[in-house]
Amino acid sequence: VPDPEHQLRLLCAGTVDVIRREELAARLRTGRPLRVKLGIDPTAADIHLGFAVVLRKLRQFQDLGHLAVLIIGDFTARVGDPTGRSATRPPLTAEQVARHAESYLAQVGRVLDLRAGRVEVLHNADWLGELDMGDVLRLTAQVTVARILERDDFAARMRSGTPIALSELLYPLLQGTDSVEVRADVELGGTDQLFNNLMGRHLQAQAGQEPQVVMTVPLLEGTDGVQKMSKSLGNAIGIAEPPAEQFGKLMSIPDAVLPRYLSLATGWDPDRARAAVEALAAGELHPAAAKRLLARTVVDLYHGPGAGEAAEAEFDRVFRAHEPPRDLPEVSLPVAELPMELPVLLVRAGLAASHREARRLVTQGGVRLDGRRLDDPEAHLDATDLDGRVLQRGRRRFVRVRVAPPGSGGGNGGASGDVVPVRSERDRSE
Amino acid sequence: VPDPEHQLRLLCAGTVDVIRREELAARLRTGRPLRVKLGIDPTAADIHLGFAVVLRKLRQFQDLGHLAVLIIGDFTARVGDPTGRSATRPPLTAEQVARHAESYLAQVGRVLDLRAGRVEVLHNADWLGELDMGDVLRLTAQVTVARILERDDFAARMRSGTPIALSELLYPLLQGTDSVEVRADVELGGTDQLFNNLMGRHLQAQAGQEPQVVMTVPLLEGTDGVQKMSKSLGNAIGIAEPPAEQFGKLMSIPDAVLPRYLSLATGWDPDRARAAVEALAAGELHPAAAKRLLARTVVDLYHGPGAGEAAEAEFDRVFRAHEPPRDLPEVSLPVAELPMELPVLLVRAGLAASHREARRLVTQGGVRLDGRRLDDPEAHLDATDLDGRVLQRGRRRFVRVRVAPPGSGGGNGGASGDVVPVRSERDRSE
Repeated sequence: VPDPEHQLRLLCAGTVDVIRREELAARLRTGRPLRVKLGIDPTAADIHLGFAVVLRKLRQFQDLGHLAVLIIGDFTARVGDPTGRSATRPPLTAEQVARHAESYLAQVGRVLDLRAGRVEVLHNADWLGELDMGDVLRLTAQVTVARILERDDFAARMRSGTPIALSELLYPLLQGTDSVEVRADVELGGTDQLFNNLMGRHLQAQAGQEPQVVMTVPLLEGTDGVQKMSKSLGNAIGIAEPPAEQFGKLMSIPDAVLPRYLSLATGWDPDRARAAVEALAAGELHPAAAKRLLARTVVDLYHGPGAGEAAEAEFDRVFRAHEPPRDLPEVSLPVAELPMELPVLLVRAGLAASHREARRLVTQGGVRLDGRRLDDPEAHLDATDLDGRVLQRGRRRFVRVRVAPPGSGGGNGGASGDVVPVRSERDRSE
Repeated sequence: VPDPEHQLRLLCAGTVDVIRREELAARLRTGRPLRVKLGIDPTAADIHLGFAVVLRKLRQFQDLGHLAVLIIGDFTARVGDPTGRSATRPPLTAEQVARHAESYLAQVGRVLDLRAGRVEVLHNADWLGELDMGDVLRLTAQVTVARILERDDFAARMRSGTPIALSELLYPLLQGTDSVEVRADVELGGTDQLFNNLMGRHLQAQAGQEPQVVMTVPLLEGTDGVQKMSKSLGNAIGIAEPPAEQFGKLMSIPDAVLPRYLSLATGWDPDRARAAVEALAAGELHPAAAKRLLARTVVDLYHGPGAGEAAEAEFDRVFRAHEPPRDLPEVSLPVAELPMELPVLLVRAGLAASHREARRLVTQGGVRLDGRRLDDPEAHLDATDLDGRVLQRGRRRFVRVRVAPPGSGGGNGGASGDVVPVRSERDRSE
């Protein structure tokens, strides 16, 4: 284990806020393993490259002998958004939360060290669910309204007259209560969590504990290059997504955010990232080449060495030579259901969420069959039109259609009409 | 029972706000007994003339066949003031709350009809104590921060930068939850409760109930004529205080608040009160005479017809003829404890709260023995100085001192040094 001064430099590299650096230094000097808290929202179990930034910081602590304390925020997930304003936050059942948490842990293992003794996984419903109204009054007595309303987003909403539900003021206190409960030495988060995590310091001090060190890391922009990466904004790249998806999405980011991605998404140490960013700025590295480098690096990071190069070759095959990809999902249609209207087919193939959306795609020219555009949403397609052909949405989504003869059970062992990701015949013959 | 229109006029007389009058009219027209809620704070069990204003309004509802629903606020009393800012609001035990509530109900019977079927007495810890953190989030989701901060005192404190604990924002919601729980048709309160009681309307509407009608009555000023009557401000007149105390305090109020007292403290109907106020304004009724009329009326109201006249006669005997009052508490001192320093004696006699206060009273010339001023706080008084004499603080507080011979157990059956209110020998001989 490196000496405390060296640990301090490593751990502070790439952070935005460290409150306070001298407190972190003092704790590192004690030589004991620190309890490093990270809160997890189990409403969205998919981990994206943005969240991976903080996970890698946590991994760094682990590698220096400290303990990762993961707090699954199952309490608030189970309450949902009680204002009912957010349709995306319905109350989840205990089972849903458990399933998300499991999926989360499966993914998080791509970054964290999940061996016994390196990580503690706790569920905050275990303590928050025990609080009664008297506890709530004692908890809320420790914080002033003015202090809570200082949080940037609350302050902005108060100024603009946008309603804030009283319940929203309580959430930072719940997160802070978690810090008291787990006796965190350090709490990690994105810069948007600075206020909430400082609340943990405040409540720990009120409870007579030494207040945690709060460290924040930058928020990574999504593939749109504008808003922070978020699954609900549709601009996220999941760390568990297939190589082709990761590669394609990374190739699509705007040039302007390339330096951010090179610094935050590659897992490179700060010096290496800085060198690449400078080469880009100096014109020594072309943006297209930088994106290929970025995409190969990220795919390698989450799918193992070599996965990046393979993804790049496949990408070129599809997008330069305009051939369908090698790995192609299939949809199997019983012959009895044919002919089928084109929008119905697109939904069955999983290429559209609704008939309405499918119809829009067709009229906008976004649907092809074996490379030829289909532009009539009223078109009825028969077995001869479809069997063995590749249905395509936009530039990157393909499904091969199989027509199953009567009595065959739908072919390929899948349920009728299900999309089954299998290797194509061409692959099998190789 | 009078017809609904007549009930409406009677019930709205003397109120400040009725929100809304047409809703009250509609409920009265249904002919069913209305549930009329009044919240009681069991931290101060003494009922004063200010609180009696709203109690009399509640009695009026009872007399028209409606049900008084008294909510003992034991939940918040037992939590106390969790900010620790108010030394006067320590958490109370369940036993203390029960004792206060009992004392409260004993006094409230001087105004309300406490017979079965006329009143329901409920304790809000029964439901508020059952709320968990999830319930709290759902409850607080129903209210915006802006709306809560509209309350006059919160708004003023936000403007002036005076801290508001987050817990304080929750109390109006607790009172509102009480209204939902008891399905109140009407809630009564002083004008200072308008906001809190409107919260009950809001939460009832959210819960799918018809929102309660909120009615407020004026706040009576205390004997200082400036601040609202409140036991903690020391300007209160209790409805259960002895006639002489009530009479004397009412004679001491500033002339400026006489119209308020004539309107709010006498129990007179609005016409009669208005006539007295007008006579006073026209100079037909002298302020001193008006005070005597007021004082007689109030003493009659709480101690029965004739009690007012008797209190007036006693008042004149003491303050005009400068004789000690007939009804005099006694303090019994064991001879073994004499001589006694004057400040110690004053505390033992219940005329001072501390030796420090006693010393100040003496040096300010506020202490007399049989009418002669005692001005030496170092004076030691012996049995011959004290036995049978009347110790006096200020103009209106008297205690007769008895010296108990050795082995008598302190005399008068009381514990050594206790002040025992007994009739004096002179009374007994009558």
